[in-house]
Amino acid sequence: MNIHELIKELKEPIGGKIVLVVADGLGGLPLEPGGMTELETARTPNLDACVRDGVCGLSLPVLPGITPGSGPGHLGLFGYDPLEYRIGRGILEALGINFAVGPKDVAVRGNFCSVDAKGLITDRRAGRPATDRCKEMCVKLAGIKVPGVEIFVEPVREHRFVIVFRGDDLGDAVNDTDPQMVGHAPLLASGADVASQKTALAVNHFAAEAARVLADEWPTNMVTLRGFSRYPRISSMREVYGLKAVCLAVYPMYKGLARLVGMDIAGAGTSLKDQVDHLTRVWSNYDFFFLHYKYTDSTGEDGNFPAKVEMIERLDAELPRIRNLKPDVLIVTGDHSTPSKLKSHSWHPVPTLLLSSTCRPDAVTEFGEATCLRGGLGQFEAKYLMMLAMAHAGRLGKYGA
Amino acid sequence: MNIHELIKELKEPIGGKIVLVVADGLGGLPLEPGGMTELETARTPNLDACVRDGVCGLSLPVLPGITPGSGPGHLGLFGYDPLEYRIGRGILEALGINFAVGPKDVAVRGNFCSVDAKGLITDRRAGRPATDRCKEMCVKLAGIKVPGVEIFVEPVREHRFVIVFRGDDLGDAVNDTDPQMVGHAPLLASGADVASQKTALAVNHFAAEAARVLADEWPTNMVTLRGFSRYPRISSMREVYGLKAVCLAVYPMYKGLARLVGMDIAGAGTSLKDQVDHLTRVWSNYDFFFLHYKYTDSTGEDGNFPAKVEMIERLDAELPRIRNLKPDVLIVTGDHSTPSKLKSHSWHPVPTLLLSSTCRPDAVTEFGEATCLRGGLGQFEAKYLMMLAMAHAGRLGKYGA
Repeated sequence: MNIHELIKELKEPIGGKIVLVVADGLGGLPLEPGGMTELETARTPNLDACVRDGVCGLSLPVLPGITPGSGPGHLGLFGYDPLEYRIGRGILEALGINFAVGPKDVAVRGNFCSVDAKGLITDRRAGRPATDRCKEMCVKLAGIKVPGVEIFVEPVREHRFVIVFRGDDLGDAVNDTDPQMVGHAPLLASGADVASQKTALAVNHFAAEAARVLADEWPTNMVTLRGFSRYPRISSMREVYGLKAVCLAVYPMYKGLARLVGMDIAGAGTSLKDQVDHLTRVWSNYDFFFLHYKYTDSTGEDGNFPAKVEMIERLDAELPRIRNLKPDVLIVTGDHSTPSKLKSHSWHPVPTLLLSSTCRPDAVTEFGEATCLRGGLGQFEAKYLMMLAMAHAGRLGKYGA
Repeated sequence: MNIHELIKELKEPIGGKIVLVVADGLGGLPLEPGGMTELETARTPNLDACVRDGVCGLSLPVLPGITPGSGPGHLGLFGYDPLEYRIGRGILEALGINFAVGPKDVAVRGNFCSVDAKGLITDRRAGRPATDRCKEMCVKLAGIKVPGVEIFVEPVREHRFVIVFRGDDLGDAVNDTDPQMVGHAPLLASGADVASQKTALAVNHFAAEAARVLADEWPTNMVTLRGFSRYPRISSMREVYGLKAVCLAVYPMYKGLARLVGMDIAGAGTSLKDQVDHLTRVWSNYDFFFLHYKYTDSTGEDGNFPAKVEMIERLDAELPRIRNLKPDVLIVTGDHSTPSKLKSHSWHPVPTLLLSSTCRPDAVTEFGEATCLRGGLGQFEAKYLMMLAMAHAGRLGKYGA
C-alpha cells in the first residue's frame, strides 16, 4: 500500500502543531581520525536539552549510500518518497529563482556558450560572463516569438539562465541540446512522444532564433538547454496530512520546494532571527511550520569546519524562542549531510531530534552523530519522519480495528 | 524505482577500488548462555583495527528470520535483491560443479534411485552409491540421444548428478519427477507453457531411455529429476555499477555465482594465502575484488566451534596483506551466519565492517556480533551494502539537483 493512501485514511481532522527545522546539510564528519564532527564540536545547550526531553536518531535521506540533492532531500522530509517523486533540473532551477511554475509549463536550464563561424561550440560556458551580461542577453532572448507557445527567459548567474515554455500539452521527454563537449554544434531537440515532439519543435524554433539574435554577441553567441521538465503532480500536504502548512525560508529554492507540496510561503526576512519572528507572527494560522536554515550547508560546502560549527551554535541560540511557542512536535534535522571534510553533500545519515510530550526516553543527552546512533528513532528513511510527527501530534488514528 | 536503475543513473565512470571479503557463514552464536560467539572468541587484532578505523554493522542477508542458501546470500552482497533474482536448484548445482551454463540451457539436479520390477521406487538415493559408481552411471546416461536437444550429464557426489538440456526455446516451468516417497514410480514431466512442454517431452524421452540403459544396474537402476531451471537474466556488475570485477574463490560454486554477475574468475590456488597472492597479482587490472573464504562456514556446518574460531583467526592473520594494497573500500562480511551450535546456515544478522577514509566513527573497537549492533551501519539489508561501497569509493554521483 502506498504510504500516502494509508496516511490519508488515518489522518485526524485536528491535532497539534508541528515545527520542522531543517538545518541544511547538518550531518558531518570529523576532520581527523578520532576527532569530532561539526555538530559534536558545537556547544548546543538548547539542542541538547531537546534531545534529553525528546528522542533522536539518524535519518537516511534516500537509501544507504545515496547522496541527495536539495530536491529529494526535502521531499523525503516532507514525507514524499524521493524515489517516487522526481523533480527535474529545469523545474528546480526555476524554483530556485522563484519563478512561479505552472501546470502548462516545461522548464529547462539554459547555458550561454560560444560558437565559431561553423556553429561549433568553442566554450560551453561562454567564458563565464558577468551576471549583468547574462541578464542583458536574456532580455534579447525573451523577445523571441514561437507560434503557440509563450516563452519566459530568466537570468540565473554567469552563463546560466532558465527558460520556461508555456503552452497546451507540452511534454518534457526532450533530449538535452548540450552535446557536453566542445567542437560539436548544439544538438537538435527531439521529443519521445507526441506532446514532447510539440515541445521539441518550439525548442528548435527558439534555438534557431537565438543563434540569429545572438550572432553578434560573441562570446555569448549561442545557447544550450538541458533538464527539460514539467511540474510534477504532487498531492499537497493538506490533501495527504490534513495540515495547513507554511514555509519560512530565506532562499527561493526552498520556498519553491515548499510550494511544490502546497505550503503557503510566509515572509521570512533575511536572517534566522527574522525567520523566528515571522514564525511567531503566523503561529496561530497554521498546523505545520517548515523553517529552513541554509548556513550549515553553505559553510560545509565551503569546507569551513569552524564556520559550520558557528552556524550550528547560532541555530542553537534561536531554539529557545521556537520552543517557547510550545509546538506539540518540534523536529530538528537536515535534508542530507554536508561534511566540511568533503566540501559537498554526502550520503551519511543525518542527526535528527523529535521533541513532544509522547516521546519514549532513549537516554541520549547530547545532539551529535555518534549519540544519535543510540537514539530511540534508530536509523530510518527520511520519508517516515512525517508519519512520526503526525503520530506525536495526535493526528493519526488507529490502523484497523 | 528499481535500485539498479538508480545506480546505473548515478554511477561515476571512475573511482576507487573495492575489496569484498566474504567469510562464508561468519556470524555465530554462543554455545552456552552468557558465552561468546565464535567471532567474539577469536583473537582478531587486524579485524579489530579495521573496525576502529572504519564503521560496522549487521547485515540481514534477505529479510529478518530468513535463512539464505549460498546463492541468495551472495547475490544480496553483490547488490542483487535475492527476492527478485532467484537461482534455481539445477543452475546452482551446475555452477557448483563448474559447468559453464549458457542461455540455451535448462539445468536440473538428478538423483539415482532404486526401482522394483514394477518401476516403483524402493530407495530414493539408490543406497547412496560410491561417487565412482555415480560417475560410471553418468557416462551411460550421457550416451542417451534426444532429438533436437543436446544433453550433458555430470556426476556430483554419491547419488547426485546434474543434467543440462541444451536447445532452442526450452522452458523451465517443469515439475519435479521425484515423487518424494517410495512405493511410487517417478513422475512424468509436464510443462506449464509451450517452451516448457518442449523441455518436458525431452525429459520424458530421456527418462524412458534412462530406465532402459540402467535396467541391469540395480540399485542405481533409475533416476529422478528436480529443480528445472534456466540461467537467470542478470545485468553484470559492469552494467550496473561500472565496475570491472574479479572473483578470487577456491570452490566452484562461488566462482559460478560470481560468473553469474559477470565477474572475471582469477586463478586463486587452494588456500587463503594463495588467494591473497592472486589478489595482489591482479590488483592493477580490476576495480572490484570478491574474495571468498569458505572455512568459516564448513567448520560451522560441522558444529566445530573451536575450529571455526581458528579459521576466523587465520583470516585475521591474512588481513594486513589485503590492507597493504590500500583498497579505497575494504569490506569484511559473510553471506549468512552458520553458528556451530546449529550446525547449519541461519537467519541471524551477519557482522560487517567497512573501512574507507570517508567513514563516520562509531566508537566500536572490536569485531563481533554484540559490538556490531552498536555500529554506524546499524542493521541493514545486504542488498544495500554495494551502494555504500560505491559511495565510499567515490563512485556514486548526487541524486537529483
